[in-house]
Amino acid sequence: MTLTANEQMWSELGIDLESHGQLMNALGPIYGEIYLSQKNRPQGMGFYDFVVGDIHGIRVKELREHAKDGGKVVATYCVFVPEEFCWAAGAIPVSLCAGTQFSVPVAEEVLPRNTCALIKSSYGFKLGRLCPYVQVSHLIVGETTCDGKKKMFELLAEQQPVYVMEVPNKRSTAGRALWQQEVRDFKAKIEELTGNEITVENLGEAIKKVNARRREFRRLSALRAADPAPISGKDALLATQVSMYDDVERQTQMITALNDELEERVKKGEGVAPKGAKRILISGSPMAIPNWKLHHIVESSGAIIVGEESCTGSRFYNELIPEGIGNLEDMLTALADRYLKTNCACFTPNTERLDDIIKMARDLKADGIIHYNLQFCHTYANEAVQVDRALAEAGIPLLRVETDYSDEDAGQLKTRIDAFLEML
Amino acid sequence: MTLTANEQMWSELGIDLESHGQLMNALGPIYGEIYLSQKNRPQGMGFYDFVVGDIHGIRVKELREHAKDGGKVVATYCVFVPEEFCWAAGAIPVSLCAGTQFSVPVAEEVLPRNTCALIKSSYGFKLGRLCPYVQVSHLIVGETTCDGKKKMFELLAEQQPVYVMEVPNKRSTAGRALWQQEVRDFKAKIEELTGNEITVENLGEAIKKVNARRREFRRLSALRAADPAPISGKDALLATQVSMYDDVERQTQMITALNDELEERVKKGEGVAPKGAKRILISGSPMAIPNWKLHHIVESSGAIIVGEESCTGSRFYNELIPEGIGNLEDMLTALADRYLKTNCACFTPNTERLDDIIKMARDLKADGIIHYNLQFCHTYANEAVQVDRALAEAGIPLLRVETDYSDEDAGQLKTRIDAFLEML
Ligand code: SF4
Ligand code: SF4
Ligand code: SF4
Ligand code: SF4
Repeated sequence: MTLTANEQMWSELGIDLESHGQLMNALGPIYGEIYLSQKNRPQGMGFYDFVVGDIHGIRVKELREHAKDGGKVVATYCVFVPEEFCWAAGAIPVSLCAGTQFSVPVAEEVLPRNTCALIKSSYGFKLGRLCPYVQVSHLIVGETTCDGKKKMFELLAEQQPVYVMEVPNKRSTAGRALWQQEVRDFKAKIEELTGNEITVENLGEAIKKVNARRREFRRLSALRAADPAPISGKDALLATQVSMYDDVERQTQMITALNDELEERVKKGEGVAPKGAKRILISGSPMAIPNWKLHHIVESSGAIIVGEESCTGSRFYNELIPEGIGNLEDMLTALADRYLKTNCACFTPNTERLDDIIKMARDLKADGIIHYNLQFCHTYANEAVQVDRALAEAGIPLLRVETDYSDEDAGQLKTRIDAFLEML
Repeated sequence: MTLTANEQMWSELGIDLESHGQLMNALGPIYGEIYLSQKNRPQGMGFYDFVVGDIHGIRVKELREHAKDGGKVVATYCVFVPEEFCWAAGAIPVSLCAGTQFSVPVAEEVLPRNTCALIKSSYGFKLGRLCPYVQVSHLIVGETTCDGKKKMFELLAEQQPVYVMEVPNKRSTAGRALWQQEVRDFKAKIEELTGNEITVENLGEAIKKVNARRREFRRLSALRAADPAPISGKDALLATQVSMYDDVERQTQMITALNDELEERVKKGEGVAPKGAKRILISGSPMAIPNWKLHHIVESSGAIIVGEESCTGSRFYNELIPEGIGNLEDMLTALADRYLKTNCACFTPNTERLDDIIKMARDLKADGIIHYNLQFCHTYANEAVQVDRALAEAGIPLLRVETDYSDEDAGQLKTRIDAFLEML
């Protein structure tokens, strides 16, 4: 059997070619059905179609070339991990959050079944040797944001070098002090890994680069406030998902071009759904690529998703790091403080998130909110009780869904979502 | 209808008399079946029979009298919360960890169903107004040891004053610094609550008192190494459970008397099970009163439980705080460090616990270990994978069980446990 160039690369990376081939073969038709079937898509999405079409190919090749030249690749799972240090030190960060049921069964042979799908999928990608990104990485960076992930990283560490950042539980004075220290320790770790010093200059550059991408995502978010919406929720989600593992400057370019196009659309009153279509804000757990399940159901029912209050949404791009600080200590403090503003349900209390949700719903003129909860995610599930109450007070309709990566509940979800949309 | 004196008191405390009456009525026969049916019990258990017979009566009355004189009552849920500060400042700490299915359904109306039974039972006790201990408390002290509890405390805080201690996720330098600060903040909180200053003198006294109780429990644990075992696992567990909410000095007395009696038994070679009975060590999640389910099944099958590597076991009494330190700062540091040695699965990594389990199994001459996991407890469930591996290496047989507070799986558990005992 002759291997294609990609297969040759995967095989060198220790990928299980047979299983991986099944995964790749499955992805194409799914993407076609969910994405390519959409009408009136922005031309700027062409790039993302191309990326997904070769999802484990061209980017992995870039990373390998980087590694061949002595460069380091750093895998992460959470938006708390400051990517700026990687860019500053000449390493490439890639976000590994995994969004497919395909890698769940192999994980369940080890992990408790009643673990959130994101954790199982992540671990399964490594255990089943299904992900070239994890294979090409020199360091996996975990964090302590939830019970399941925190402990899964201990098992992952048996397979590959893992470094765990502690995210505090409370944003108290002591909690902030701990996080400030953790950020400094992580900087030292990246310096050690790369052999490159992180300086005022290279960190300043990195902060600017990542901020630039954040600014374009904020612009994209603002454009989605238009009615008719100039882009589908699915496409906006995809752009976010890809940005989490792609080159930061390329992504800034791509999103800028996309935004320019969307701006034209908004001016002309053009959109992807009829004016007046029901507008939905999604809030909750992150949706790692290729988890498009909820977006697909909602938008197939004629509604349009106008925003994501999640880590594959606003929490990825909302807060900027102050630029132009002239000394390293103050830069590190500002950087750490920016990350601590991530309103993840891992914090107690986390009432800031309730404010975020209501503000986003108003800014984006959402008719209703769907709270998306990965099954067995205790922090978001508990926080949903408070979201429920806050939205009732604010007079914003809410639907709470709890699901996983399987398709078993798709019909039931569709029924509930249709009923919710009907009601709006 | 005339109320009994207890009912009058409960009613004044805002208890739901009807539901609570059902709970009390259920407990008697269960206790009779599980406890009073045992043969050859130590006489020292008579006190505990008396305590359980009036479980929401006499101790609550003591607490109310204490409160009437201006004293404070502090409710806790976890062995991380330093009870010494309470005793030092003249407050009474009571451990509230809840162990009955009775309070679960009311909690499930609010909390996610796939939450561990301990959390649901705790919250249900408050929501259903079923627990006079929580009602009589001036402050509830939570901690951030797991996702579910951490977020449940936010909901509990809507009902009653709650103070949350942050337990770090990593025992790193930064994690230790955070914990040292948290312990000092908690001390200040107790001083504020009671209006009493915590000093070298009163804290020194408190440390001695709690250490004395810990020493007697360590002695009890050592006595259980004898074959035949001088006390059942059920009785030893009960003594621990009661000690967690009773007066510290009274408990030291009671356990001392019990130990003296057991020492005689050991000398005479007397025991509660035949010499050579299969010896089991339990390891895992805490068993809050009246959760005697696993112990009852195991000992009904003819085996004897010789130890509990859990927070209603060794983690409650193993480590002592150094005595005789002459200045407050050093006392606080030593106290905080003692608590940080609690090998709870909330820490990453937590390999010290694996060592503890193996050491306990050898010291107590256990033939096998049952790893007890409350369903949906992610930290212990994940750590069980490592426990499994460590015990396989050490050549100690292990059975992993995952259960909740309901009796639905009792038959199935019994079958699995019988098969395990058979195999030993
Ligand atoms: S939801 Fe929390 S833990 Fe998950 S990626 Fe976001 S910040 Fe990290
Ligand atoms: S969705 Fe929840 S349980 Fe899953 S990884 Fe994120 S925080 Fe953890
Ligand atoms: S198991 Fe952990 S969280 Fe539970 S009581 Fe023990 S120390 Fe606290
Ligand atoms: S048993 Fe586990 S999930 Fe339950 S309260 Fe304890 S640590 Fe939390």
